[in-house]
Amino acid sequence: MQRPVASSLNCITPLMAISPAALQDALHWRYATKAFDPGRSIPAETWTALEQSLVLSPSSYGLQPWKFVLIRNPELRQQLRPHSWDQSQITDCCELVVFAGRRDIEQADLDRLIETTCQMRGLAPEQLGFYADLMRRNLVEHEQLPASAIAEWVGRQVYIALGTFMTAAALLEIDTCPIEGFDPAAYDRLLGLEGTPYRSWVVCAAGYRATDDKYAQLAKVRYPAEQLIERR
Amino acid sequence: MQRPVASSLNCITPLMAISPAALQDALHWRYATKAFDPGRSIPAETWTALEQSLVLSPSSYGLQPWKFVLIRNPELRQQLRPHSWDQSQITDCCELVVFAGRRDIEQADLDRLIETTCQMRGLAPEQLGFYADLMRRNLVEHEQLPASAIAEWVGRQVYIALGTFMTAAALLEIDTCPIEGFDPAAYDRLLGLEGTPYRSWVVCAAGYRATDDKYAQLAKVRYPAEQLIERR
Repeated sequence: MQRPVASSLNCITPLMAISPAALQDALHWRYATKAFDPGRSIPAETWTALEQSLVLSPSSYGLQPWKFVLIRNPELRQQLRPHSWDQSQITDCCELVVFAGRRDIEQADLDRLIETTCQMRGLAPEQLGFYADLMRRNLVEHEQLPASAIAEWVGRQVYIALGTFMTAAALLEIDTCPIEGFDPAAYDRLLGLEGTPYRSWVVCAAGYRATDDKYAQLAKVRYPAEQLIERR
Repeated sequence: MQRPVASSLNCITPLMAISPAALQDALHWRYATKAFDPGRSIPAETWTALEQSLVLSPSSYGLQPWKFVLIRNPELRQQLRPHSWDQSQITDCCELVVFAGRRDIEQADLDRLIETTCQMRGLAPEQLGFYADLMRRNLVEHEQLPASAIAEWVGRQVYIALGTFMTAAALLEIDTCPIEGFDPAAYDRLLGLEGTPYRSWVVCAAGYRATDDKYAQLAKVRYPAEQLIERR
């Protein structure tokens, strides 16, 4: 059932979709893994696809106002762990991703996006004038979002990538644990993000659940759909 | 290749995973659909799985501080469209979901979660004391998050659900368009959320791309992985 990866970045490649039942299976199977098996590695092909899930994640305007810091260095993980409520996932998982977002959006960010878009789509910047103006008015001149709200808006975009990553991982039978219990200031210092345009927002550990992680066997707690979904 | 849906909510169901290549195919295929085919409906089994992707979406503490308003009423959609930059997706898509989040977190929300957890896992509330205290200190007594930051924190959780939903949809070959270009106050008024504990954060249209949506054929614009992923 393997298909070659789409050879170019476009949206018209025919798909091999999964069944609705298989999707639900994967989402049921997922849980916030508390104990990872430190001895198991994610196969390279699988991890590459998960990195691509980060790269391909949707963001408002397609702005990609983020950076993903992938931490494999064991000493650095040891340093981060005490700033993460001493959670074992930080050191025991196979891949540790810090999701970072722009502290602010500047005209140069928009110019970079317009330039990249023109290159990839064979357009002249004038053809993207409406799009460029819209972004400038909203993000740089703050017609819609006040300046103070930009960082929070970026934070929300970052969480789209987090949701994308965890869902993609579950489909590939890779366990994850999203982690908000950490000190962003300490992370920024240890990761060298201090004084840069990026700040850390959330962390996600990925790998394989330990066979004795008792949380894997607990019933998933969700409110019934009738309470969460309103129909109009 | 169809499997029965997991019969109970747990995390140990064996999975039928997809291949890394198929995942990447789906993520390449996805794009923010500008023109939906108003004549095509999502099959019931597929839509049920997508509703479940909302219900099963991860959230911090498993708190589920959200509500998903599903709008099928054509008159209501017509009323919402002028408050959504007159975007055609609002009226032409098959399913329109407004992602709403709690304005604040109260002790009663935590009590409800603890009670539900005890019921589903056969526990006594005392056994969840650590978890209950942690949530209370952080979300109600504001040891970690100031009161003013709670709504924004909820907003980020809501965006996890948005990322989960769009990724799940792409895997099922369902098109989506995330929409931030709308007036949340007008939505809250028209949806009856005004004066309730919930506010609208983001909208997502779902359905099938129109065969003449020219955006489907544009190259996807992404920065190279080397620029988005830092390795430590």
